[in-house]
Amino acid sequence: MKKTLVALALTGVLMGVTSGAVAQSSVTIYGTLDAGISRRTDTDVTAVGKRDNNKLGFRGVEDLGSGLKALFQLEIRYEPDTGVIENTVRPLFQGQSRVGLQGDFGTLRLGRGLTAFQETSTAFEPWSGMPAVAGYQTDLQVAGYTSDPMSVAGNSLNRFSNAVFYNTPVIGNIFQLNVTVASREANNNPVIIGRGTTTAPQFPANSMAAKYPYSVSATATQGPFAAYAAYERNAVATKLWSVGASFKPINDLKLMATYQRQDQDFSLPINPITKAWMIGANYNIGLGLVRAGIGRKTPDNALNVPTIAKTKQFSLGYDYNLSPRTYVYVDGTRRKATATTTFNFYSVGIHHNF
Amino acid sequence: MKKTLVALALTGVLMGVTSGAVAQSSVTIYGTLDAGISRRTDTDVTAVGKRDNNKLGFRGVEDLGSGLKALFQLEIRYEPDTGVIENTVRPLFQGQSRVGLQGDFGTLRLGRGLTAFQETSTAFEPWSGMPAVAGYQTDLQVAGYTSDPMSVAGNSLNRFSNAVFYNTPVIGNIFQLNVTVASREANNNPVIIGRGTTTAPQFPANSMAAKYPYSVSATATQGPFAAYAAYERNAVATKLWSVGASFKPINDLKLMATYQRQDQDFSLPINPITKAWMIGANYNIGLGLVRAGIGRKTPDNALNVPTIAKTKQFSLGYDYNLSPRTYVYVDGTRRKATATTTFNFYSVGIHHNF
Amino acid sequence: MKKTLVALALTGVLMGVTSGAVAQSSVTIYGTLDAGISRRTDTDVTAVGKRDNNKLGFRGVEDLGSGLKALFQLEIRYEPDTGVIENTVRPLFQGQSRVGLQGDFGTLRLGRGLTAFQETSTAFEPWSGMPAVAGYQTDLQVAGYTSDPMSVAGNSLNRFSNAVFYNTPVIGNIFQLNVTVASREANNNPVIIGRGTTTAPQFPANSMAAKYPYSVSATATQGPFAAYAAYERNAVATKLWSVGASFKPINDLKLMATYQRQDQDFSLPINPITKAWMIGANYNIGLGLVRAGIGRKTPDNALNVPTIAKTKQFSLGYDYNLSPRTYVYVDGTRRKATATTTFNFYSVGIHHNF
Repeated sequence: MKKTLVALALTGVLMGVTSGAVAQSSVTIYGTLDAGISRRTDTDVTAVGKRDNNKLGFRGVEDLGSGLKALFQLEIRYEPDTGVIENTVRPLFQGQSRVGLQGDFGTLRLGRGLTAFQETSTAFEPWSGMPAVAGYQTDLQVAGYTSDPMSVAGNSLNRFSNAVFYNTPVIGNIFQLNVTVASREANNNPVIIGRGTTTAPQFPANSMAAKYPYSVSATATQGPFAAYAAYERNAVATKLWSVGASFKPINDLKLMATYQRQDQDFSLPINPITKAWMIGANYNIGLGLVRAGIGRKTPDNALNVPTIAKTKQFSLGYDYNLSPRTYVYVDGTRRKATATTTFNFYSVGIHHNF
Repeated sequence: MKKTLVALALTGVLMGVTSGAVAQSSVTIYGTLDAGISRRTDTDVTAVGKRDNNKLGFRGVEDLGSGLKALFQLEIRYEPDTGVIENTVRPLFQGQSRVGLQGDFGTLRLGRGLTAFQETSTAFEPWSGMPAVAGYQTDLQVAGYTSDPMSVAGNSLNRFSNAVFYNTPVIGNIFQLNVTVASREANNNPVIIGRGTTTAPQFPANSMAAKYPYSVSATATQGPFAAYAAYERNAVATKLWSVGASFKPINDLKLMATYQRQDQDFSLPINPITKAWMIGANYNIGLGLVRAGIGRKTPDNALNVPTIAKTKQFSLGYDYNLSPRTYVYVDGTRRKATATTTFNFYSVGIHHNF
Repeated sequence: MKKTLVALALTGVLMGVTSGAVAQSSVTIYGTLDAGISRRTDTDVTAVGKRDNNKLGFRGVEDLGSGLKALFQLEIRYEPDTGVIENTVRPLFQGQSRVGLQGDFGTLRLGRGLTAFQETSTAFEPWSGMPAVAGYQTDLQVAGYTSDPMSVAGNSLNRFSNAVFYNTPVIGNIFQLNVTVASREANNNPVIIGRGTTTAPQFPANSMAAKYPYSVSATATQGPFAAYAAYERNAVATKLWSVGASFKPINDLKLMATYQRQDQDFSLPINPITKAWMIGANYNIGLGLVRAGIGRKTPDNALNVPTIAKTKQFSLGYDYNLSPRTYVYVDGTRRKATATTTFNFYSVGIHHNF
């Protein structure tokens, strides 16, 4: 039977199940649900919270022949305790939305995702880059730096939108270089006073980036050793550099250390330098994993400006694996910043991948 | 070939299709699309609306061995007539977002979902707990009660966020106990004047729950008989108790009755007591199902405060099953509350599960 | 083992994987990820953007026997460069949310989707109806018309919410008729001054449609020829008619032409008539596809009101197919409207279906 135009569109719908059988195989659904009960000593609330990001993702790879592949990934983020999208206001596909090609030349993708620095450094953090209160990724491991200062309040701190992502192949089985470059496009960013004044802010509402933001990281892996160096400049020309290394003296033990330095001189008239370091360890015991870390963040002129306190954090965690996809955990941390932000934090929860 | 760090992450992406074959089998996608054409006699609009909640869900179960299982469920809710999320403002995963473990000890989950009372009582309602205008679940079956009074305007009335959900196993093949306890956490709740004044409201903006909200229900099933009793206290210390029973004199007929009493004394200076009852029936005829119900809600002091009217509702519905997953339906109802909210309602539509 | 009530609900969860194996086969996941790098000569920004709509959809068809089928489709739309839902504010299922039945009588669906005119006309547009800057679908092909003028700012221009969609079968292997009728329901529409004044607007906030909006299109296909005619009236009684035809002199070449006329007399006191035409071509060369088009939009009284300029657009595009699902593309266009909206536009990108 011949079909006219709308009939063809409807046939497309009707053939959904059949053609879907093909199409479906090109999409993988994956995700993480992590929820726990936690208590911070500076509040009197026992709450339901999370240790890891909660994800519901869709991804796929298509083999184009001759070693060329097309790849895409879309990742919803959400809060398991209330069912809303991450932090209530973040993009639906906060995790990432990227499409691109991979081949002998490396991997080239377009969209939104973690910057080269942010994606690289999580492998050197004892909580695996999870945004756990006990973890170091969101503050100490980045010296308080934010990759996207021009995004709206509540948005995440470690991603570029409107960006090109490039990763080289692994060179000599050892080295890899990763580059992220974002557009200067304005995306309804809020006013940033910076070195200006309230009436003449350095960055008025919805202004463009001062320069093209970019992020570069290089990694090297050799036997039990791994290391990285990274440099990033964000939309308000804040510069960050970071180095880190890990070492596995035995198979079940991984030692990690990172150092980072943030320079906000372009937009911050005083105390523009922040330095931070962190050392940590992961240790496997049977089905368990012990996580431990200690770190410090030091505003440069802290001695002269005594209200700017050093941040100190000591954390201990334990995972018990019920399966390769599911574990229960307990975390404890002591964080000391200013007098009013010093607290102990305890949590127990479940982490499930699907 | 050895991989360095980011290469490993990318390999994860590339192996998506393969590992996805495994991962995919752990996720079930399900949902409901329900849309119909309806008319309310107090407006002059014939509109496209819904009888049931519209769902797009993702769930899975992992067998951990020794009778232990990990389970998760994420359920998007939406409006089919406009394509927006439920009621425009509700959480993305309004249906539920829960993760937990199940074993000999019962089922323990964390997250957001229906309270024990709300989940239990829907089985005793002739519209199966659907939020149909013809149904009783959202108003009469709960005596006008709301489980989450502190959430923002437009949010749903029958769920706890930040909660722990526990269900016992079925004891002696007859009894089961279900408990939900929520955190006192503040989640941007609006001002609730309550027993206070405009300038000194009983619950200022974003205040915490008065006490830990909780919900308990017990069920018993024996042959053709089933019954429940439930007690719930919400964040502003409103107390609700409810009892219900169902009986199947023949296989194709199910008779239902519930009674409930709400006590808002903690936050309502006058008329704090509301009582409601409902009786209903479901009757299978061939591929059809007849639904019928009658109910009444009585504010306690209505005689002294004549503006507070009794609510009366009589409803009749019919489903015709085109398949186990799809039916068409027609509903008619007469609802009498105050003079301005008395209306007849008619709808015809299609209900499709996938 | 017998189960009591909540146990049954939980069993439903637990049987997810098994029953899911059935349920899953009834859902097809599909989508499009399209991202590119583009430059407009009237800005100094090189940005990441899109050529096509970005989709993540869920659809299914159920065979009900006797030639009857139930069908549903839910389509998320999003921006790949930032990860947000389309245009930041549109419905989650902006693409469509529809459910219905198909049989010998044709196809009847309820919900939200493209109108009959909008869905039909895209097949006669050289960019396949994609909202590319180089394409004609969103402006010239509709003479600047909007199907849903009462929706909130930022919403899309070519869909009906609260609508009934009917398509006849293909008659005599040649003809098909398509009808969309929307409700007059108010959905928080903004103020439309129209022929009123600021203080007495023609359509106050959240007012209902003047008349039932509807859209009708008819198509005919015979050998290498295809043609359509369409008529639509929106919620503020704007009337649009449109005709178009396509011809394939050889298999690899498709020529297209459309003409349309918009009459806004009901709500626009001056210049209510807009006319537009467009001619275009698609030409396959090996794995490539050349797209070309030229069009013009003429406000009727433009000579008397010289600030209302004619819009002229010339575009050229090229797709190179890496596979049936993936292509890379380059577009170039020159658009001349008013002095301030005349620009050249160039983009290069990747389009991936899954």
